[in-house]
Amino acid sequence: MILQMLTRCAITFLRCQIYDFSLVDNKKMEKSHKLALKKGTSVFCVPSHLSPGALAGGIDIAAHWMTDLKEGVCLNGFWFNHEHCCWASNETTFQERDKCPQWKSWAELMDGVSEHGRVNVLNHFMYVSWALLFAFLAVILVRAFAPYACGSGIPEIKTILSGFIIRGYLGKWTLIIKTITLVLAVSSGLSLGKEGPLVHVACCCANILCHFFTKYRRNEAKRREVLSAASAVGVSVAFGAPIGGVLFSLEEVSYYFPLKTLWRSFFAALVAAFTLRSINPFGNSRLVLFYVEFHTPWHLLELIPFVLLGIFGGLWGAFFIHANIAWCRLRKNTRLGHYPVIEVLVVTLLTALLAFPIEYTRMSSSELISELFNDCGLLDSSKLCDYTGNSGSTSGSVNATAANGLGARLAGPKLYTAMWQLALALVFKMFITVATFGMKVPSGLFIPSMAVGAIAGRLLGVGMEQLAVHNHERDIFRGWCSPGADCITPGLYAMVGAAACLGGVTRMTVSLVVIMFELTGGLEYIVPLMAAAMTSKWVADALSRESIYEAHIRLNGYPFLEAKEEFRHKTLATDVMRPRRSDPPLSVLTQSGMTVEEVERLISDTTYSGFPVVISQQSQRLVGFVLRRDLFISLENARRHQDGVVSVSAVLFTECESPASPSAPPAVKLHSILDLSPFTVTVHTPMEIVVDIFRKLGLRQCLVIRNGRLLGIITKKDILKHMAQMANRDPESILFN
Amino acid sequence: MILQMLTRCAITFLRCQIYDFSLVDNKKMEKSHKLALKKGTSVFCVPSHLSPGALAGGIDIAAHWMTDLKEGVCLNGFWFNHEHCCWASNETTFQERDKCPQWKSWAELMDGVSEHGRVNVLNHFMYVSWALLFAFLAVILVRAFAPYACGSGIPEIKTILSGFIIRGYLGKWTLIIKTITLVLAVSSGLSLGKEGPLVHVACCCANILCHFFTKYRRNEAKRREVLSAASAVGVSVAFGAPIGGVLFSLEEVSYYFPLKTLWRSFFAALVAAFTLRSINPFGNSRLVLFYVEFHTPWHLLELIPFVLLGIFGGLWGAFFIHANIAWCRLRKNTRLGHYPVIEVLVVTLLTALLAFPIEYTRMSSSELISELFNDCGLLDSSKLCDYTGNSGSTSGSVNATAANGLGARLAGPKLYTAMWQLALALVFKMFITVATFGMKVPSGLFIPSMAVGAIAGRLLGVGMEQLAVHNHERDIFRGWCSPGADCITPGLYAMVGAAACLGGVTRMTVSLVVIMFELTGGLEYIVPLMAAAMTSKWVADALSRESIYEAHIRLNGYPFLEAKEEFRHKTLATDVMRPRRSDPPLSVLTQSGMTVEEVERLISDTTYSGFPVVISQQSQRLVGFVLRRDLFISLENARRHQDGVVSVSAVLFTECESPASPSAPPAVKLHSILDLSPFTVTVHTPMEIVVDIFRKLGLRQCLVIRNGRLLGIITKKDILKHMAQMANRDPESILFN
Repeated sequence: MILQMLTRCAITFLRCQIYDFSLVDNKKMEKSHKLALKKGTSVFCVPSHLSPGALAGGIDIAAHWMTDLKEGVCLNGFWFNHEHCCWASNETTFQERDKCPQWKSWAELMDGVSEHGRVNVLNHFMYVSWALLFAFLAVILVRAFAPYACGSGIPEIKTILSGFIIRGYLGKWTLIIKTITLVLAVSSGLSLGKEGPLVHVACCCANILCHFFTKYRRNEAKRREVLSAASAVGVSVAFGAPIGGVLFSLEEVSYYFPLKTLWRSFFAALVAAFTLRSINPFGNSRLVLFYVEFHTPWHLLELIPFVLLGIFGGLWGAFFIHANIAWCRLRKNTRLGHYPVIEVLVVTLLTALLAFPIEYTRMSSSELISELFNDCGLLDSSKLCDYTGNSGSTSGSVNATAANGLGARLAGPKLYTAMWQLALALVFKMFITVATFGMKVPSGLFIPSMAVGAIAGRLLGVGMEQLAVHNHERDIFRGWCSPGADCITPGLYAMVGAAACLGGVTRMTVSLVVIMFELTGGLEYIVPLMAAAMTSKWVADALSRESIYEAHIRLNGYPFLEAKEEFRHKTLATDVMRPRRSDPPLSVLTQSGMTVEEVERLISDTTYSGFPVVISQQSQRLVGFVLRRDLFISLENARRHQDGVVSVSAVLFTECESPASPSAPPAVKLHSILDLSPFTVTVHTPMEIVVDIFRKLGLRQCLVIRNGRLLGIITKKDILKHMAQMANRDPESILFN
Repeated sequence: MILQMLTRCAITFLRCQIYDFSLVDNKKMEKSHKLALKKGTSVFCVPSHLSPGALAGGIDIAAHWMTDLKEGVCLNGFWFNHEHCCWASNETTFQERDKCPQWKSWAELMDGVSEHGRVNVLNHFMYVSWALLFAFLAVILVRAFAPYACGSGIPEIKTILSGFIIRGYLGKWTLIIKTITLVLAVSSGLSLGKEGPLVHVACCCANILCHFFTKYRRNEAKRREVLSAASAVGVSVAFGAPIGGVLFSLEEVSYYFPLKTLWRSFFAALVAAFTLRSINPFGNSRLVLFYVEFHTPWHLLELIPFVLLGIFGGLWGAFFIHANIAWCRLRKNTRLGHYPVIEVLVVTLLTALLAFPIEYTRMSSSELISELFNDCGLLDSSKLCDYTGNSGSTSGSVNATAANGLGARLAGPKLYTAMWQLALALVFKMFITVATFGMKVPSGLFIPSMAVGAIAGRLLGVGMEQLAVHNHERDIFRGWCSPGADCITPGLYAMVGAAACLGGVTRMTVSLVVIMFELTGGLEYIVPLMAAAMTSKWVADALSRESIYEAHIRLNGYPFLEAKEEFRHKTLATDVMRPRRSDPPLSVLTQSGMTVEEVERLISDTTYSGFPVVISQQSQRLVGFVLRRDLFISLENARRHQDGVVSVSAVLFTECESPASPSAPPAVKLHSILDLSPFTVTVHTPMEIVVDIFRKLGLRQCLVIRNGRLLGIITKKDILKHMAQMANRDPESILFN
């Protein structure tokens, strides 16, 4: 099976070669087709979009195998996972396809114990041990090789796309280690998903490929566009949701998303979807991960429970963000943070110990979601489908038989047990996810959030169903549930609940609804999904404005200028610019008349990352802006390589040399490093507009002038501090790390 | 039926009242819930989103009735359309639900003629007469009351959203007349759709409602956000595609689309979808207009015909745009443009004469699309489903009986006839649409484009199917078409073709795919749809870069700064700014020292819409910018109402009054109309960045300075002219009308 998968991947890669040539950028095609091909700028996209697909496939297979390894091993070959082991065996029937003699649990394999209690204990012990081993390996690898590989990576990618640079965050080590540890973390059974980290992995792939092409290596803006497309691909391959991925990148990840990026992301997603369709990972010729087939249309009155689910999702989202941030802050500020390995091991131990006894927590979260989304068919043997009507109506309830046909949906005892177990699983998942997200292992949030929502939704759905069954004579249900027909689909409630919880945590709207379509194929349920997503966003936003990613950005103090909220205060640029009234005047360079020594002293005395250049100290008329780093390097180079440069040599930023006395030492000409078009605003500009300019143009600083005289400077940090101050938050919490 | 619909609309409006209170803006809710409600800013959205929905419903019903009126009348009551007339009759059976004694064609009604030929001629005559009447009324109404009501309106809305103001374009007369004439134009049987005009209608509703709220009346940017959301609603209600509408607004209409607008549009679309679901216009509890239910998964090899369809769509899109623009230019530049009424009547006459004989052109385009999308079921009596296997295999073909089971898909004689008719319909629609779009009646492009694509797709699909049937032994088809099973779904080809043609004309990608999902429910066919959309866009873009809307914007010379294309030339701000080297110096005002007379002379001598204010003519240091209109009004006011103002009075833009001699006449103080934060760039700023700033910040002009001295000004018009020059187009084609 693995070989087969690898072959398929190889074939896909070969196919990609054919695609490569179809990928010539349109504009290029018109002008210089051949040149473009030669320069290698055009054949860029495909590998960057295919490699995450292949990686995702690999991660899927490996994680599946290792998850099963915790329970047992295949006698036909240890490399088979449970399902494939029993596929290979010809003794299995359709009903019990996951039970076959070739698959041995660890207890069976070890000493042939047959006593039920001991078998269970032994299996539990092995389960916990493997989980601990995987988690240990994961955290050790992350700590040793790539500290950036932990977490979901989406907050950092958001920050990077807004213009901040985190060196090494998208490097090859991060890629390798994140891929390996992601498999380990998922296999260890921790309450985490692989979707967020896959976005990070896709971005790493794209960033590394960027290095091979001059166009992208040189131009940071272009690279950010590629990263936007890569995050679309990440979600596309994670969920098999190509359009959802594009919209996720647009709504959640990207800072600035021009139409061209939209089309590129769309193409990237097309390649990813095509790859997925060729590999056919879900084995059903569909791109749909949790395919549902409901036949009952929903009733308008059902919007009430759907909105309730939306409220639950919003409340949970707000609670989760609050609790998780509090926990992460505790980790950051106390001694807890010094022992990340022990923390991971303790959480894994807890998860493994508590998860094993209940079926719904032992199975992987995506299997759980799949089961919860499913509607009960006639042949379904799941405990969730134990209705008394199915099993020959052994229940003694008179009501059941009295209700003509509706008794078929009266809950049986197994269903009640399942409900209790689901309720326990809900509480367990809610708390363990809070502790898990943010540990030093790769961890995504999509699947755990959806699992919480799906459990809550299914519980409410079954509740509604039983309410309808028991009150089917009431007016309210009479027009709605015709006797003998199913009128409430608990699976639909699970779907809506999952959307609501995911929405509460991430605050997505359009992309959420599209992802839910593409995950389930349930296009008819667009209004319930939209209503739940909207309610959930409203409720969560009313409690706290930030999504989990923004909360983590703030927790880590990244310089991220929020694009969502409007700046509504009446302050002016003059209130924010530095220097303030009590401060010493702005450190400026003059375009001529300064010596090397003076400039060097200015560099060593200050920590600013750049200096404005003016005509003279008296006029303060702005000429340009020079970066500290460029200035430093140029002066050092001049001192080393240019003959005769001494401390009293003049530094000139002008193009034309002023006539100096012949005895003077040669001047250092720095016109080339001067940015002649620095961005300026006037002192009277309202901060609302300044913030808007910073956001839309992605500026890092901006000079403030009045009547042509330079008066001050505003940096992104100043704006962030000002905004924090205006919102009554501690302005010192914003750090450039 | 009409009453029932009206009641439903009324109920929906009442429901909206409940919704109103749930609509409080989140931010407001936190801060000043009550205040916001009092100010009336928050209860704004719902009516603006509901009214287009109700209008769309009304237009639908009226157009349906009037379309049927061309063919005949209902004896039970003239206000019933054909379908409802026969619903009301209890003599009809399921099979022939559109044939009933109550419905009389005009020929039957008039003189009881029974001769077949005469009946036909008479019906044809009545059909043409009604069509001419409707078209005449439409064009007369448009010409008499609201010249802006013609066309689709999307090019103009794009321009308005980019910051240009067209007075009266979104006014109440346009709304009323466009709604009425849209019904007339659709009913007249012209090859046009109602989707584009509905976007215009929705924007009119939103704009009119904006006048009732101070927040939106005052702030143009806010109003544009509302218009963005309104265009989303327009598409939502037109197609029943809420998410598709949001994305259409994002990708095609809006110039600048912040996340907040995305959420508002999403909410607006939710309300629209909910309204639609409550009204249930398609009568199937679904929001889906052309619901399809295909069961055959597609084969990877089928991507070849899908890509071919994409190429056809792209070619058609490019041809259509080219031909339509050429035709419109002809109309504009020759005497043809002087006779719009006659033009409309001639085109209507041609359409009605030619369309009547063929069934596929006589039916309305959306019915045609619906029939073409449909897969052939067993009970289907359509000519398109005449396979010999169905009708007892009367065909003499030996092959058919030899092919075990596959014979069921061998084309029968009626199918061949249908194919010929479809081919004729294709040619007819292709040419008549070119002549129709741009006439002085409301006209949309979505439905005609989709019809062309659907016909082409169905033709190719049937062709592929027959190819597969006739070559079923070949290797290529053997693994793909298992005997006895349908392996090719012609309806799917029609769907892909429709998407390709719509994409070729409008150049949508993501929104196109989502709209197609939502129109058809065919979520499984995401890869074919994406592949066709992408190919179509590539092919069309290779032939000409502009979508039909952009081409019309350019044709009309609207000042629209294209956001899609990058500016790749190396020019600087100094190359574009005015005054040029040979020109007289820039007309500026000084902040003090000018007299009323001097300022008035400057106003009358120049046509600029604004003037920079500097400290003095010598220093040219910039103080601010003042609009011509404000200046004119202020001076006139001062002359009229301020005592002692004469021609030699000083005009002061400074805040503090300079000590003047007591004998001098009182000065006119204009500090309040001075914009103290005009936007500036330096002469060295690359035009690439200037264009980017203009686009992202929606500027109209920008001042150019060097070293604090004002040197020139760049307006949007200058940029558009420069871009046209760089692209070797005539720079004088850009006009501010």
